[in-house]
Amino acid sequence: MNHVEVCFSPADYALYESGFELVVVIDVLRATSAICTALENGIARIKPVAQVEEAKKWQSKGFIAAAERNGEIVPGFDMGNSPVTFIEKAPQLQGETVVLTTTNGTKAIDIASDKKTVVIGALNNLDALSNWLLKQDESVLILGSGWKDKFNLEDTICAGAIADKLISSGNFIADEDSTVAAKFIYRSARDNMFSFLKASSHRRRLRRLNLNDDVKYCLTPNNVTTIPILKDGFLVPLNESTNENSLPIEQAPMAH
Amino acid sequence: MNHVEVCFSPADYALYESGFELVVVIDVLRATSAICTALENGIARIKPVAQVEEAKKWQSKGFIAAAERNGEIVPGFDMGNSPVTFIEKAPQLQGETVVLTTTNGTKAIDIASDKKTVVIGALNNLDALSNWLLKQDESVLILGSGWKDKFNLEDTICAGAIADKLISSGNFIADEDSTVAAKFIYRSARDNMFSFLKASSHRRRLRRLNLNDDVKYCLTPNNVTTIPILKDGFLVPLNESTNENSLPIEQAPMAH
Repeated sequence: MNHVEVCFSPADYALYESGFELVVVIDVLRATSAICTALENGIARIKPVAQVEEAKKWQSKGFIAAAERNGEIVPGFDMGNSPVTFIEKAPQLQGETVVLTTTNGTKAIDIASDKKTVVIGALNNLDALSNWLLKQDESVLILGSGWKDKFNLEDTICAGAIADKLISSGNFIADEDSTVAAKFIYRSARDNMFSFLKASSHRRRLRRLNLNDDVKYCLTPNNVTTIPILKDGFLVPLNESTNENSLPIEQAPMAH
Repeated sequence: MNHVEVCFSPADYALYESGFELVVVIDVLRATSAICTALENGIARIKPVAQVEEAKKWQSKGFIAAAERNGEIVPGFDMGNSPVTFIEKAPQLQGETVVLTTTNGTKAIDIASDKKTVVIGALNNLDALSNWLLKQDESVLILGSGWKDKFNLEDTICAGAIADKLISSGNFIADEDSTVAAKFIYRSARDNMFSFLKASSHRRRLRRLNLNDDVKYCLTPNNVTTIPILKDGFLVPLNESTNENSLPIEQAPMAH
């Protein structure tokens, strides 16, 4: 039987990654929500990079680049990781490649990038992603991006939602306590996510930055259907890169 | 206002420990349950050591030593970390010092041992410990021992129970998402801990080893009132080592 397990943060990745070749990376507030939204709205590719310096290099070569640190746009960049901004700017970004670096999410994508398959999850694409995962005959590791290596609630809720759907199908089992906990936290939260997350440290952080519109957007399940997948170092919509019912044959590690 | 925060495992300790001088170490299955039980039943002191080799050295000097790895008694030792065994052997151990090393719990005590105050928590001493913590004017870090650096459910439930009591008093606040999550997991579990933990990886591990009596004992809240405290490298009952209403003046780091 295939496994589905939850790893709370990049700091724990080495304890959990063994035996998995399919990793779902989650950063609900806001990197992976922004990536799903950008690709849903006509941006062709996202190039995730871990460091601001690398994003600057791509920018100097003429690429459009977005950079966020600590919830704010990095000086010298026009965009951060706001999905609402990606929607607003979508008309000018049709078919473009956008380079993106964020505090937590792109770091998590980076550490998973040597796996055969890396896909991007958010509450925004919850059902589309879960339904696709159910069709793969492959164990699934769900990696939360956390906040600077610490556990965070919103990624755990999203990871728990995916794990719950996969386990409920009867075709996946979970062994790790982290997976059991994520499932219970999701079930406690699902009927009123916004109020449940009042206590979340990151939501408080974003509220201080007047990012409530983004938070509301990111906590809305199933407002997109795109599943971003890492292919040759770029995140592209899954249905354009692969057959819907099969895993990609080869997955190049992310360039550095 | 003082803080109470939960750190899930020793692997995360460096991310959370800053600013805390009072640490509660928890290893429900079974080290800290055994320590509370041993001191409650007349054993004078527990010497926690991180390594089996160190326990052997103490043993060769004539000390009674107990050692557990992976749920089993280490060959060459008479006892592991079974609280039920400590109760059975208590008549022969009155006033004695017992050296103890375990897979996770003594490692967690070790990494916290440079803090001013290290006390030992379990479900067994939940109310006694929580009431004592409420009387201290000090922020509290609750450190779960986990399972080989991974998150575990039973330590998180116990940590959540303590955090919930402290936060409910109105005299403590929590900022970390790990603390919020531990509180929610405790509230989901509290009415039927045994059934909730059916899915726990460690309980399955112990069931395979026929340790259900120990598990039942460890999951019983408030069957002891002893609060073990680390003093000069030994765990002793708090009421014998310090004034009930004040913190110890000095706390020597654990010897190695």
